[in-house]
Amino acid sequence: MEQYKERIHQWLFENRLRGTRLLKRLVQEASVQGSEKYAQALVIEKLRQLGLKIDIWTPDIRQLQKHGAFVSTRTSFEDSPNVVGILKGKGGGRSIILNGHIDVVPEGDETRWTYEPYSAYVKDGKLYGRGSTDMKGGNVALLFALEAIISLNISLKGDVIFQSVIEKESGGAGTLACVLRGYKADAAIIPEPTNMKILPEQQGSMWFRIKVKGRSAHGGMRYEGVNAIEKANVVINHLLELGAERNGRIQDSMYEQIPLPLPINIGKISGGTWPSSVPDTVILEGRMGVAPNEMMSDARNEMKEWLARLKEKDGWFTEHPVGLEWFGARWLPGQIDPDHELVKILTSQYRFVKAEDPKIEASPWETDGGILTNIGDIPTIVFGPGIAEAAHFPNEYIELNAVFEAAEIIALTVIQWCGIANE
Amino acid sequence: MEQYKERIHQWLFENRLRGTRLLKRLVQEASVQGSEKYAQALVIEKLRQLGLKIDIWTPDIRQLQKHGAFVSTRTSFEDSPNVVGILKGKGGGRSIILNGHIDVVPEGDETRWTYEPYSAYVKDGKLYGRGSTDMKGGNVALLFALEAIISLNISLKGDVIFQSVIEKESGGAGTLACVLRGYKADAAIIPEPTNMKILPEQQGSMWFRIKVKGRSAHGGMRYEGVNAIEKANVVINHLLELGAERNGRIQDSMYEQIPLPLPINIGKISGGTWPSSVPDTVILEGRMGVAPNEMMSDARNEMKEWLARLKEKDGWFTEHPVGLEWFGARWLPGQIDPDHELVKILTSQYRFVKAEDPKIEASPWETDGGILTNIGDIPTIVFGPGIAEAAHFPNEYIELNAVFEAAEIIALTVIQWCGIANE
Repeated sequence: MEQYKERIHQWLFENRLRGTRLLKRLVQEASVQGSEKYAQALVIEKLRQLGLKIDIWTPDIRQLQKHGAFVSTRTSFEDSPNVVGILKGKGGGRSIILNGHIDVVPEGDETRWTYEPYSAYVKDGKLYGRGSTDMKGGNVALLFALEAIISLNISLKGDVIFQSVIEKESGGAGTLACVLRGYKADAAIIPEPTNMKILPEQQGSMWFRIKVKGRSAHGGMRYEGVNAIEKANVVINHLLELGAERNGRIQDSMYEQIPLPLPINIGKISGGTWPSSVPDTVILEGRMGVAPNEMMSDARNEMKEWLARLKEKDGWFTEHPVGLEWFGARWLPGQIDPDHELVKILTSQYRFVKAEDPKIEASPWETDGGILTNIGDIPTIVFGPGIAEAAHFPNEYIELNAVFEAAEIIALTVIQWCGIANE
Repeated sequence: MEQYKERIHQWLFENRLRGTRLLKRLVQEASVQGSEKYAQALVIEKLRQLGLKIDIWTPDIRQLQKHGAFVSTRTSFEDSPNVVGILKGKGGGRSIILNGHIDVVPEGDETRWTYEPYSAYVKDGKLYGRGSTDMKGGNVALLFALEAIISLNISLKGDVIFQSVIEKESGGAGTLACVLRGYKADAAIIPEPTNMKILPEQQGSMWFRIKVKGRSAHGGMRYEGVNAIEKANVVINHLLELGAERNGRIQDSMYEQIPLPLPINIGKISGGTWPSSVPDTVILEGRMGVAPNEMMSDARNEMKEWLARLKEKDGWFTEHPVGLEWFGARWLPGQIDPDHELVKILTSQYRFVKAEDPKIEASPWETDGGILTNIGDIPTIVFGPGIAEAAHFPNEYIELNAVFEAAEIIALTVIQWCGIANE
């Protein structure tokens, strides 16, 4: 093992420019939902160069729709390929899945970007662009970890299954399709942007919609009506209390560094049609975090029972309870035993490469790790070079140094996990 | 005078069916903004039958735009005529304006109406339809009061100026156009729906828009952001306090019967775009009542200074004050001296017709009385047969008895105010 460490390091150093160029090309392909194919074409070409066994398919929506975990706004995945590349091992070793999503969220308001969102502009060691940090930098870390291993003729015992999936930002249909296609391994790594922290636990989440009712009246005689916006205030405060209560229960040391491990976020509010009228309806939409060891149905029930208690705060809700529905995106929480061998190996290789201890925490946001863990029964760690706070925002960027450090750490982890053949 | 009272009563009784038919025809013309002409045609025909001097014109928007009180969303009044009919007096008496708006608000969600919104269906003495109560029933009371006076050959000293105006629901451009055209009188009556109460004071109002700022973040890490919806809660409570403070100052006995004489209503809220994001902007829109003896600029200043105090409630507002703008509709408050001769006459004739005392109060909603009072310098009373709570709602209706009682009271009031010639 030891002899490879120096060679991996050297190879990555010598090939850094090529890696940077691949990342630039990937970022320049604006692979928003529905437009993934050109970015996937670049991935396919790289896998072809590496000599991997390639599987390219467009997920079958009818098959996916039958599965309880399927979430997507799309009616077809035609023209949106999933890509898998397999590095077959010699046998007798542990297998690993290296999973990265190729899709990106939209760039939003272009005027807020300093450089064009898909320019992949490099300055002072940072590469800018939508998808750089979330998560094409991570994908390139995976690809270059593989290329280093292959170029150095390091023969592994276990299989390495590289997955470049669609639809992560929209509910995980791409990773679900991989699981249903039969891809299985002893563990998995997903290099989502973790600021180089190791996240053995990943939060899940669900979207809720709450309808608050009032009674309309002319605004000049507002005492004749009941203002749904004022009633929504009561609901919002009630929800914040539920968040505080749920957070108060978290004992898990993984969450020590996180101020609010299990947030309830109210993301959208809309109500009323006319300034001169008392509004009779307000709609609240938001996100409820689900803990890694929590059943989503339990979280839903808790929300439902909590909202039923609104009448204790305000008698209006006795005759006019709020409406509650769950809609849209839903992410399963994910978890790997913190004492799992892969966690130990990754931690150890991190220490070697970075000469410092890694931070090991629970993630406050969602990944496809929930699908691999719960549906695929594949223990999953999330660890990657991107910057969590930059994801989904204007002027998203990644530190190039981190990309290649992550590549090195992941390469060494894969080697140790899968084992070296003929050693 | 006394001999006329019985004859007026008798004439209205005998002609009630014709009055009801006119009201039905008027209600059946859906005279929403921009579509007033067919209803106005019916009014013009009635004025022609009465032998009044008729003035028909479409207001000149360029002339109106120069006036500080002009408010409208329209860019042209082409095809939307204002109508005035004058019953010239013999001279030496007081003149009076009888003003009613011909426009109606939209019917809203048609599925909520039991009968079709423009059916003018009559059942159990009630006539149903958009505009029945607000305020075509009142307009018919005016027209039949005039027809009674004319049919009975009662010759008045003072002029009676009947006005059928557009745009009352949209800011008062029709009544403003009448004032600018030179129509002036010693006093005015507007039979808006007052439930037969006499309203010598009418509230004004203005529309405000408040922008509340937050800081965006991923909903899973909401502690990184500042939720604008939660901050809007603070603003809403602060506004309710301002409303309570302003209402606490009202000493005017006219408001004794009204729970909240000077309300601030938050009518519309909108903020956030994504359930999984912490929202950074919330917009509140609402209506601020203006007291009859209050300058609108003073009310605006009070709102501005009150909002500046938000930082005392929450330090966030120190660096992130809310934005405030005034937009859209604005109605001037109106007022007539409660001891004004016209108030005394109207009260006395009400007592005669109804054999009970009228309720005399301030109105909690807006009318064109503000324009006649402040711009035209014409003391104005608001008194009419419609039902305030039914206005603007589905299943709007009016009690036909009230229409003809109001016609009788107004006819007798006009006779006493203007004086009888050759008596």
